[in-house]
This record gives sequence, structure tokens and C-alpha cells, in this order.
Amino acid sequence: MKDSFVIKGNIIWSETNKELKSVENGYLVIKDGIVEGVFNTLPDEHKDLDFIDADNDLVVPGLVDLHVHAPQFAFRGTNMDLELMDWLNTYTFPEESKFSDTSYADRVYSYFTDAIKKSATTRMVAFSSLHVEGTLILMDKMEEIGIRSYIGKVNMDRNSPDELREESPEKAAQDTERWLKECVKRGYRYTKPIITPRFVPSCSDELMEKLSKIRKEWRLPVQSHLSENMGEVEFVKELAPWSKFYGDAYDRFGLFGDGCIMAHCVLSGEEEIELMKRNGVFVAHCPESNENIKSGIAPVRKYMDKGINVGLGSDIAGGTTESIFDAAVDAVKVSKLYWRLVDDSIEPLSFADAFYLATKGGGAFFGKVGSFEKGYDGDVLILSDDSIPFPRYLSPTERLERFAYLHGDRTGIKGKWVKGNKVL
Amino acid sequence: MKDSFVIKGNIIWSETNKELKSVENGYLVIKDGIVEGVFNTLPDEHKDLDFIDADNDLVVPGLVDLHVHAPQFAFRGTNMDLELMDWLNTYTFPEESKFSDTSYADRVYSYFTDAIKKSATTRMVAFSSLHVEGTLILMDKMEEIGIRSYIGKVNMDRNSPDELREESPEKAAQDTERWLKECVKRGYRYTKPIITPRFVPSCSDELMEKLSKIRKEWRLPVQSHLSENMGEVEFVKELAPWSKFYGDAYDRFGLFGDGCIMAHCVLSGEEEIELMKRNGVFVAHCPESNENIKSGIAPVRKYMDKGINVGLGSDIAGGTTESIFDAAVDAVKVSKLYWRLVDDSIEPLSFADAFYLATKGGGAFFGKVGSFEKGYDGDVLILSDDSIPFPRYLSPTERLERFAYLHGDRTGIKGKWVKGNKVL
Repeated sequence: MKDSFVIKGNIIWSETNKELKSVENGYLVIKDGIVEGVFNTLPDEHKDLDFIDADNDLVVPGLVDLHVHAPQFAFRGTNMDLELMDWLNTYTFPEESKFSDTSYADRVYSYFTDAIKKSATTRMVAFSSLHVEGTLILMDKMEEIGIRSYIGKVNMDRNSPDELREESPEKAAQDTERWLKECVKRGYRYTKPIITPRFVPSCSDELMEKLSKIRKEWRLPVQSHLSENMGEVEFVKELAPWSKFYGDAYDRFGLFGDGCIMAHCVLSGEEEIELMKRNGVFVAHCPESNENIKSGIAPVRKYMDKGINVGLGSDIAGGTTESIFDAAVDAVKVSKLYWRLVDDSIEPLSFADAFYLATKGGGAFFGKVGSFEKGYDGDVLILSDDSIPFPRYLSPTERLERFAYLHGDRTGIKGKWVKGNKVL
Repeated sequence: MKDSFVIKGNIIWSETNKELKSVENGYLVIKDGIVEGVFNTLPDEHKDLDFIDADNDLVVPGLVDLHVHAPQFAFRGTNMDLELMDWLNTYTFPEESKFSDTSYADRVYSYFTDAIKKSATTRMVAFSSLHVEGTLILMDKMEEIGIRSYIGKVNMDRNSPDELREESPEKAAQDTERWLKECVKRGYRYTKPIITPRFVPSCSDELMEKLSKIRKEWRLPVQSHLSENMGEVEFVKELAPWSKFYGDAYDRFGLFGDGCIMAHCVLSGEEEIELMKRNGVFVAHCPESNENIKSGIAPVRKYMDKGINVGLGSDIAGGTTESIFDAAVDAVKVSKLYWRLVDDSIEPLSFADAFYLATKGGGAFFGKVGSFEKGYDGDVLILSDDSIPFPRYLSPTERLERFAYLHGDRTGIKGKWVKGNKVL
């Protein structure tokens, strides 16, 4: 039966962030795209399913990228010398403005979706640019590669150059509705829209109101940026003097609740953190970007301990890589620096914590995604670490940690399924 | 003529840390293994030399790794959960003790030298373990791959388990001399010994005295560790209460001068910094290791501004990767966090700063190494970034930055020469 199979291999997954579960030479059973369970020996009732022998390879849930800017893909890794607001104005806005040219968009989004297809990512939440046609090109390509995603046409009507600014809140809202209708028309199976005010500095109050209205009518999730960088936070205080804190400037418009992803949260104060928790906001933690753009380190352990939803984001091109394995390792590394340099009452993340964030943590935004517990969507990766020799026995979890630290995903992804559908 | 050739390509190198020099479609001339110069058009006098067309590829000096533990190579990227002293006792010392078994040493050192051969590294300063035979196996293999290196048999006679501790200072000194004589006997061309007290916690005063004596007799350089981690620094205060600061505990024995590399220097105080400067000590900055082992961030900009010699180290297995491109990128990243979180009077490193450290900075330990200025050793890499598509023009220096950030060295090293000798 399609979308139903058994994989035999060294199976590893998270149920909580406390530890990695693993079964050596175990059996992962997927039925109708849904995880049936992980077994030491294959139950008789599943013996007729298609059988995939992953031999000595590792078998893990697919990874989830909660925050990425697809149009920034081509220029990742160049010009890493400025802070957020200057970086946006100098490099990023001029690059994104090129996406009014659909042939440029087509070319860069081909690069992007090729890379995502080969990566460990099975679920993604992405910003496009403000351009409706470009956004649809991206969505078409995402649909083709079979990764499940939310893609957002960006909205921005202030504080950016003429060529990358919507001429009025009305026009922005019209474009957004035109885009949403076109999404319905194209009948995407895997690719969904998400309402995307770029961030407070780019969006007038009128635009926020209109997006909130559209969001309610269409019942859509929301993504934006929050408390990333000092210059940005200061700017928001100027732009929204009526707000109690940055997150309040979204909450006022009903854009800070359940189904909202806020990227970064490096500089969130206690009130903001409480509201994120109360409202069920998801934090997309983007550790590499926060280094590159000189933002700092988000206190992710604190968010996790409070029960806030947290996942990881690549944040290309503040981050340089689409690899969520890299994001997981970076999350561990910067959490150690936070512990050493900022607050030694906040324990560093373990690899188990970070892998949880990369899978089930971010996966929760999509539903039952990112684990091999019964009932979860069958998002699966087969990973080979044959290219990393080791002179003696390593446990599956040690091998997974090593695979992540040594960038094994660049060459070692041997199979990938999303909800039971083979995509690589 | 052997060791004499011209490479045509996009040539990039450092003279100072202030900027990257580059000549697009230029000519690098190497004569008798030494750089003759970089030219826009090929001078007539060099037209008869062997000609290598690197086409659109990048041509840069080889990279220098000033600090790496070869016997820790196999277990890199596993068990990244402890601080330095616990990490040594729990994972590292048990692993290194296996190198009494020459067949284990042979296997791991094959993995290690295979990786170094393929890497961007052309010069290396490495710790072996305390075992004489194992160290010679490593040196034999380094000699074969043609990378120029200093390799140190480790000395350690206290505070480690029985199976990884020399039984007396006398025995340690005898073994060191036996090893040095064997090095002479084997007639290595590329591989030289370096005196290697592991660090103050592992070496009694008697051992330090003996090593200092051997060092003078044999006129050898020295490598060790300095002011890496808080627990270690506290321990040194207990062990050497007579020392004014950690570095003083080496200086007392004449092991803190010209030709000495000290790894880390994360927690060095002003007196120690002044002494490093006065004595011409080299700092091996190991940013990834300092994250992983929870040590912190070394204030490298400060050292550079004071005129202290600084290079980069991979510090496997505190660090996970042999890539000095990765070390350069990590140096930039952590310097931004230092600026943001610790001291905003200390400017973050630019990519030009970091590439300088990776080449000419560390290269200075070997002499005129790490640049394409006339008279420098002909250490050269050809780098292809074809696997990283870009939709429009990028300058050579932008391409190099992107190559480094995107781990281009994993697949993109198309040629490698050390002092004009082709090794890859």
C-alpha cells in the first residue's frame, strides 16, 4: 500500500527534550503516512508491508525549519559585517527587490528548492518577498519537491526603499488577497499560505489592521520577527510608542496568538515572555543568524522551561545554511556561551534538547509532526555516516550527535519521506 | 623545473589583517617553491614555467592549524556535554590511553592524515599522545602526505589515570630524548618535533625543568595550553601557588618565549597578555573548542591590536573539525558575541581579519608562510565554488567569504601545494 512501509535500521527520536530514544536494529512502521510505532521485532501484522532495509544507517524524524527567507538564499555567506537594520538596508532589501523580475525569482527559487530537497528538512515555514508572482513561483517549486511548508508573501509599507515597499496598506491587502485566491486556485496539496507582516518597522498600523482582518477571514497562521536586535527594538519603541513592549505591537492587532511564529526573541523581556506563553506563540530560534547579525543569544532554555513552544530556524540569509542539523549544533554551542558569559543559572542545551527542538519542537506547529510516537506523521530520514570512520563501537545516539556536528547531512541523507511520501 | 610554476585564476591573499588583496584573472608565480609575485599579466621572464589554468577558480594561500590533538580525531563530535577538566577525565584521557596499542594508533592516524590531506591545511602544529611509538606512526604518516608540521609527543606525569601518566619525570625525559633521536634517524623532511608539556595540571615542576633543558639542548619550539577554562585556571593556582599567573608557571621554566605556541588564552589577564607580547608567544585561537568545552571567548582582537602573534587552531576534539576555514568563520562569529555580550569596545573580527589569522597569522610560526608576497613559501590552494550557484557577479573576495561560510572546503579543494610541492 502506498505511504505504508517498514524501515529497519538504528532508529532514534525524541519524545521529550530530556533524552533521545533509540532502538538499535529496530523497525519503524508507517501506515497510511502515519507512524504506527517503533519495534524491536517486527509484529506479524506488519509483515506484509513494503520493507526498506536501512542496514546500519540511522533513521530519524525529518527536521523542521520554522524560519527562513527564501529570496535571500543566493547571497547567503557574503557581507557578514553589519548589524540587522544596516544589513537589511545595505544588502537585503536591494536583493529582495530583484524578485519583481520573475525570471530572477525563478532562478534563485530553483537553487533554493534544490537545496531544500536534498537537505534534512521535511517541514518549513518561509518568507518569500512582497511580490505576488514571485511568491507563487516559490510555492509551485515547493509543491514539486513535496516538502510541506507554509510560505508567506511579505507585507511591508514603510521604512524600506521605493522598489521594495508596498504603495499603500490598501494595495498590500489587495495583493495579499489576490495571492490567497491564486493559492486556492492552484490547489496546492503541500504548500500553504501564512500571513507575513515583515516586522513592526516595515508595517504601518493600517497595514497590521488589514492583515489581521484577512487573517481572521481566511483562518491563517502568522509569522514575523520579534526582539531580534538592539537597533531594531529601539526603532520599534519609536514607531509604536503606545506599545508596552515589542510583542504588544503585534498583539494589539491580534497577530500574536495561537498559530503565530515569532523569529528570534533574543531580547524579550519578562512581560513579552509571559504573553508568548499565555498566547501559545511559537519561538523560532535562529542561533547562527543571531551571531552573524550581531544580535546576541536567545535564552532558549528559559523559554523551554516555561513551556513556550520553541523550534529552530535557519534564517537564511542572516544564517548561512539551510541545514537544521547545523542549527541544532549552533543552538547547543551558543547556549554554552550564554551560560558562561551571561547567566550561569540557565543550563546549556544538550544535544538531546537541540534535536528535540529540530524535530518535535518545531514540528508541533504542523500538528503531530517530528517524532516516531504512534499517530505522528511519517516524516522520516535515513542517514548514512559511513564517510565518518570510527575505530570502535558507538551507540546510535552518539553517531547521530557526531553526524550533526560533522555536517554529515551534506552527503549522508540516503532517503527522505514526508507523511509517508518519498521525496528523496 | 620542479617546484616552479604559474597559476592563473582569481588570486586572493592577506598582507595585513585590514583587507584582502585580490587580482581577478591574475597570475601567481612560484619559483623553486617560493612566491615570486602576483601579476595582472604574466611577465615574459616567467613564460616558460609550467602553467596551471585554474580558470574561474579561487587561488589562495594554504591554511595553518596551530593547535590540534591528532589522537582525539576519531571521537570528535561525540559527548559534547562537559567542561574541560571533566571532559578530559571522562572521555579524552581514556581515548588517548588506547594509543599504547600501535595498531589502534595506526588506524586512527590513518583517518586523521587522510582528512588533513584532503583539507585546506598546509601547515600544522599538533599534539600526539604520550606514546613514543604512536607519535612516530603519526609522524611517518604526516611525512607521507607532505604537509609540513610540528608534532609533539605529549608529556604528562600527574593528575591523570595510571594508563595515561608517565611514571616519573626521569622516564618522561628519557622517552622524549629517545623519541627525538628516532626523529633524527628517520630523516623526516617535512615533519619536526616540538616539546609538548600537556599543560600545567599534567606536568610536575621536575618534568617542566627537564623539558626546558631538553628544549635548549635540541633548540626546539614548545606548545602547550594556557588560560583556557575556569576550572583549569583555578587548578593551576592550587598547583603552582608560587606563580603570579598561569603563563608565569611556564615562564619560570623558560617555556614561554619565542617559538612557543599557547592554545586558547581565553582567560588571560593583563600581566599574562603583556608577557606573551614581550616574549613573542604565539596564541592559537580555537573558537569552536572554546564554545564546546564551555570555556568562553578569547579576546582575539585585543591580542591582534597589541601586536601579539595570533593564529587559528582546530583543537580537535574540543573542536570537531579539521577545517581552518570553519575556524576562521567561527572566529568571526564568536567575536561578534564577545562584542555584544562582553565588551563593546572591542570590535568584532571581519572576514579579512579571520582569513589573515588562518594564513599569515599562524603561518608566521613557520617563517615566511601564509601570504603571496614575494619571498613567501609557495603554499597554495585552488578552490572551486562551482557547487554554490549565484545568479549574478560576485567579486573574488565575496566568493571566498561565501566559500568559507558554506563549508566549500568539504568538496571544493581542487589543488594543494606546500612550498611548491604538489600534495593534492
